Amino acid sequence: MSFAIGIVGASGYGGVELIRLLDAHPALHTSVVAAHSQAGQPLHELFPSLAGERVFDAIDVDRLAELDLVFIAAPHGPALELGAQLYDRGVKVVDLSAAFRLSEAGFREWYGEAHPRPDLAAGDASAAADVAYGLTEFHRDRVATARLVANPGCYPTAILLGLTPLAPLVEPGSIVVDAKSGTSGAGRAAKDHLHFAHVDGNLTAYGAPAHRHTGEVERWLPGELGAISFTPHLVPMPRGLLATCYGTLRADTSADDVQDALHAAYDAEPFVHVLAPGTFPHTKALAGSNGCQLSAVVDERTGRVVVTSAIDNLGKGAAGQALQNANLLLGLDETTGLSAIGMYP
Amino acid sequence: MSFAIGIVGASGYGGVELIRLLDAHPALHTSVVAAHSQAGQPLHELFPSLAGERVFDAIDVDRLAELDLVFIAAPHGPALELGAQLYDRGVKVVDLSAAFRLSEAGFREWYGEAHPRPDLAAGDASAAADVAYGLTEFHRDRVATARLVANPGCYPTAILLGLTPLAPLVEPGSIVVDAKSGTSGAGRAAKDHLHFAHVDGNLTAYGAPAHRHTGEVERWLPGELGAISFTPHLVPMPRGLLATCYGTLRADTSADDVQDALHAAYDAEPFVHVLAPGTFPHTKALAGSNGCQLSAVVDERTGRVVVTSAIDNLGKGAAGQALQNANLLLGLDETTGLSAIGMYP
Amino acid sequence: MSFAIGIVGASGYGGVELIRLLDAHPALHTSVVAAHSQAGQPLHELFPSLAGERVFDAIDVDRLAELDLVFIAAPHGPALELGAQLYDRGVKVVDLSAAFRLSEAGFREWYGEAHPRPDLAAGDASAAADVAYGLTEFHRDRVATARLVANPGCYPTAILLGLTPLAPLVEPGSIVVDAKSGTSGAGRAAKDHLHFAHVDGNLTAYGAPAHRHTGEVERWLPGELGAISFTPHLVPMPRGLLATCYGTLRADTSADDVQDALHAAYDAEPFVHVLAPGTFPHTKALAGSNGCQLSAVVDERTGRVVVTSAIDNLGKGAAGQALQNANLLLGLDETTGLSAIGMYP
Amino acid sequence: MSFAIGIVGASGYGGVELIRLLDAHPALHTSVVAAHSQAGQPLHELFPSLAGERVFDAIDVDRLAELDLVFIAAPHGPALELGAQLYDRGVKVVDLSAAFRLSEAGFREWYGEAHPRPDLAAGDASAAADVAYGLTEFHRDRVATARLVANPGCYPTAILLGLTPLAPLVEPGSIVVDAKSGTSGAGRAAKDHLHFAHVDGNLTAYGAPAHRHTGEVERWLPGELGAISFTPHLVPMPRGLLATCYGTLRADTSADDVQDALHAAYDAEPFVHVLAPGTFPHTKALAGSNGCQLSAVVDERTGRVVVTSAIDNLGKGAAGQALQNANLLLGLDETTGLSAIGMYP
Repeated sequence: MSFAIGIVGASGYGGVELIRLLDAHPALHTSVVAAHSQAGQPLHELFPSLAGERVFDAIDVDRLAELDLVFIAAPHGPALELGAQLYDRGVKVVDLSAAFRLSEAGFREWYGEAHPRPDLAAGDASAAADVAYGLTEFHRDRVATARLVANPGCYPTAILLGLTPLAPLVEPGSIVVDAKSGTSGAGRAAKDHLHFAHVDGNLTAYGAPAHRHTGEVERWLPGELGAISFTPHLVPMPRGLLATCYGTLRADTSADDVQDALHAAYDAEPFVHVLAPGTFPHTKALAGSNGCQLSAVVDERTGRVVVTSAIDNLGKGAAGQALQNANLLLGLDETTGLSAIGMYP
Repeated sequence: MSFAIGIVGASGYGGVELIRLLDAHPALHTSVVAAHSQAGQPLHELFPSLAGERVFDAIDVDRLAELDLVFIAAPHGPALELGAQLYDRGVKVVDLSAAFRLSEAGFREWYGEAHPRPDLAAGDASAAADVAYGLTEFHRDRVATARLVANPGCYPTAILLGLTPLAPLVEPGSIVVDAKSGTSGAGRAAKDHLHFAHVDGNLTAYGAPAHRHTGEVERWLPGELGAISFTPHLVPMPRGLLATCYGTLRADTSADDVQDALHAAYDAEPFVHVLAPGTFPHTKALAGSNGCQLSAVVDERTGRVVVTSAIDNLGKGAAGQALQNANLLLGLDETTGLSAIGMYP
Repeated sequence: MSFAIGIVGASGYGGVELIRLLDAHPALHTSVVAAHSQAGQPLHELFPSLAGERVFDAIDVDRLAELDLVFIAAPHGPALELGAQLYDRGVKVVDLSAAFRLSEAGFREWYGEAHPRPDLAAGDASAAADVAYGLTEFHRDRVATARLVANPGCYPTAILLGLTPLAPLVEPGSIVVDAKSGTSGAGRAAKDHLHFAHVDGNLTAYGAPAHRHTGEVERWLPGELGAISFTPHLVPMPRGLLATCYGTLRADTSADDVQDALHAAYDAEPFVHVLAPGTFPHTKALAGSNGCQLSAVVDERTGRVVVTSAIDNLGKGAAGQALQNANLLLGLDETTGLSAIGMYP
Repeated sequence: MSFAIGIVGASGYGGVELIRLLDAHPALHTSVVAAHSQAGQPLHELFPSLAGERVFDAIDVDRLAELDLVFIAAPHGPALELGAQLYDRGVKVVDLSAAFRLSEAGFREWYGEAHPRPDLAAGDASAAADVAYGLTEFHRDRVATARLVANPGCYPTAILLGLTPLAPLVEPGSIVVDAKSGTSGAGRAAKDHLHFAHVDGNLTAYGAPAHRHTGEVERWLPGELGAISFTPHLVPMPRGLLATCYGTLRADTSADDVQDALHAAYDAEPFVHVLAPGTFPHTKALAGSNGCQLSAVVDERTGRVVVTSAIDNLGKGAAGQALQNANLLLGLDETTGLSAIGMYP
């Protein structure tokens, strides 16, 4: 059994991680590696890990339409158009951008533009039944029967995995999320604020108080928990993402309730590990993997729960989860070609 | 004019930073460089930056008592004893440990032991008039006339500089502090969790929910703001500390009120710079300096203010501020031998 | 088809990399994960990447003797003893230490002790026919029929891959090797010189002029090229190794001869890529992989060839090549469960 | 006593380091901070360490001509023109580019263009008497009476400090230099190969076999030692430079001769420290300082001496040495405002 796969937007970090994962996958074959501006250029010029003569393909919708599945790792603008085209031609698509994650109204609010295809907006009540939000652990059934999967953002993945099981235990309006990401989340393009000599030994917040991922978290967090405060930070490491989430516990909630909720949600999950309270997840434990590690501790002095949740932003936060969803779309075991064991040290 | 200075506990990172700063200081002369376990060992064996033949001195109280001022950079246990001895003999002391920062009750609560000298506990109502808490910007007058200064912890320095001017604007019980430090804050001793191969590319929380610095912040934050939630993190960088502080604004508070409060507090300060809202401080901007950069932004959606405050944990968070206080104790301009410009890149 | 595998010395970095690689391998099952001092301790306490309840096994030779193959990732002292025991009991062994790489005389010279089993010293003329030096690309046939494989050191792997094809072209006595390694090559134990705050932003040479790997290179480099100068360096990165090798070309050698020799050696190899002259290998291209990238340039001004050769010291330099050899020993395709594509970025 | 100083090309890393050093200097005042493209832009937008409202000045030769001394930290093209203009108007100039370091013939060979002012080419036999090559330790007297100083390149500084005292002991044609630099040596401009996610954990050679600094070393190394092999490498650290230099010792040379030569050269020098053989210099020991640490070891097996020499590429390799020379030009003690103690950790 072999499936022909395309990657569009392969010149970004999500693309190169997909190429690496698919290269080791027993049933998927990377037939097309397309990139808009880099068509014809050797892969190794952008990514030294990809030695050899292969060049980026042009984006050819007819060619892509013949494949079993296409990953779109492009910005949300082109993804909106290409995703709709491929969906309409019956191709299975996993889109890694924000194009299809929100509702029509949410997209307008956070991205400042009308959504051209509300039927493909996974967060919209009117979305088609074969469109799914791909936080696999909580939307597995819908993903398995979908044609288009909106793969979650890196921050929302870590935050939602941390907070979803605890949502019934937390007071509305009390949630603060302080999140930290490696720099690959900011993309491959050379910019002053991504220069090695600037980033190394440097830590900074950015994007507060209204980073776009806030809307995605608020849309997909269950319950009526209200607006959250979200501050992302750029950490001097290439990969890895840690979300530290604070919420005030409801009056009748115990520390055991918190642990029980996490274990009930994840003990059977292959990629999510709940650590003992007092043990904290390390981003490096997940490098290159599709795993998530998280733990929660209750602060009796303030009545807050603190959940820390770690992923590889390019793994479970992007290419890994995209492959997990693709496995489901293609009828494979969702763990095929994926691991929860990161490259350590 | 030249003052004879001693450094005790010089084998730690606070010690080597003091040695570096004093070497460039025009009026202070480092007469004694003492360390308990390393007495007789060449400095360069621990610190390659200190080439030459000088060796660590033994800790000799009589010798120290002849000096103009002694920095104690030892753990709080030995510091309690030595600090009291030197104080009693009339020597000016800047202590960098937690020995004298809290009240007697606070010390008992957070350090689990009775304080042997409540009269020297700067945070105690019964403290002697010549004992000061050395957050210079807010306790300058008391420092100038003190004999013993309790130099603030690294986290409390960044947090208190960020929150003190805003304390009147914030709702009690609403403060969450998410702080991140470079690894030098964890000390020089070789430990598994400080191994380069473990730390590099790694980010983790630790010590939640009740890190000892919580008590110091609660003691010295003005107003009745109640318990705060504090989570420290270890960041893969050797130096630098960033505190991201969240608080719910009182009903009648505007974004302008926030900026006004910060500027009123700091526009005349040589070491604290308020950045424009939307600009965020970078830890690397302060490396090796005594500066602090901070900025605040108001999140209208949640009603919270978010203050980010950056320092060098070994600079303004330890040796730099200790020297700032020593300058005052000795009647010098407090900026002598100090800079707000970090080593960048 | 499934083979039962043991790892001894699993508490080191070579061990955890083997665990990770075997976890993704389709035909090998890690039955024993043994470590002397850590027996009974959960793996995750040493390696956060290995979440779960598994603990280190004790080293039980009887238990190991029942397995299909054992990797020994222990220091050369215990490896000498255990390797011989398992060999004598007919177990297939890949030893990652220096125990069996040299000749009896070479071992005495470089390790200062008599070799207890010259018949198992792969570098000795009297070695048994089923003992092989595991630089796979040049000893593949002997590995395939071996019972004991001496897996090459990390530095020798990079250096020998770079120089072996060029040995006939180079003047005796002219070779200088300047090599640089990430810190994982120095092991997992916490030491002052491996402390993050010391290593980060730091570069240093060490071990010159007579690092033990010199003897291994001189033993296995073909031809009579004489003593080489070898200086290793510690680079502030956790993984990756780059060898820069200089040699004076024989009088009648052209730049084309150099390229031809490299391509003749490696164009059919799955894990070694020759880059175009003027393009230089990046260690990060190989992270976590079993690949090697190398290139050569000729300096007409000095008559020297300069070869740079990059590997992951824990991949092709240790666990990866060990698995490549194990695949051969077990009759599998040598590429099974291995990749030449590193984790980038 | 206060001198008015200008910095041209202040928007680069050499510029910001000069600004930092001059800010702490007791006798120099930075009157002009000029940059071609950034004129009018706030300094803090490029350099977060420089908080405040100061903006880059335009390059106004008339304004510069009124100053006591001008540092030119621009590329060699504009430096050639501006340096000559200021020299002709009698202004003291320290130029940090390659514009005035070589001979007329050397400049043509390595930079591919005719030198417009051979009288200002410090390496030329016809150079004016008041033009000096600014490797201070070996050209101190000529610097003290100069009007134009050609500040050495970062690689040549480390290499020449390491090899100059040993030149009489080494065989012609035998020198190999393998050098490694932090990335700030490649400049501030955002480029793909300087992207944090690319550089972190990455090591690569570049520029072999004929980097332009080769010509500068060959010009200024005493004796007739012939062409040298020079390979630079890019190391994942922002600052720091280490040169590992190999040379075959003349027949009658002992290991003691080597140590004696180094100590004779440097024991009275304030910024150069000779470490004991077997101890190797650490780049981090020099961060932000004007120091150099070096040591030599003799390899009896090969007859080669190996010298390792470490500096901060922006310190002794650029801005620090420029200030050392400026102090001399202005009649100050050459150590004023400089230190040999780096920021460690």
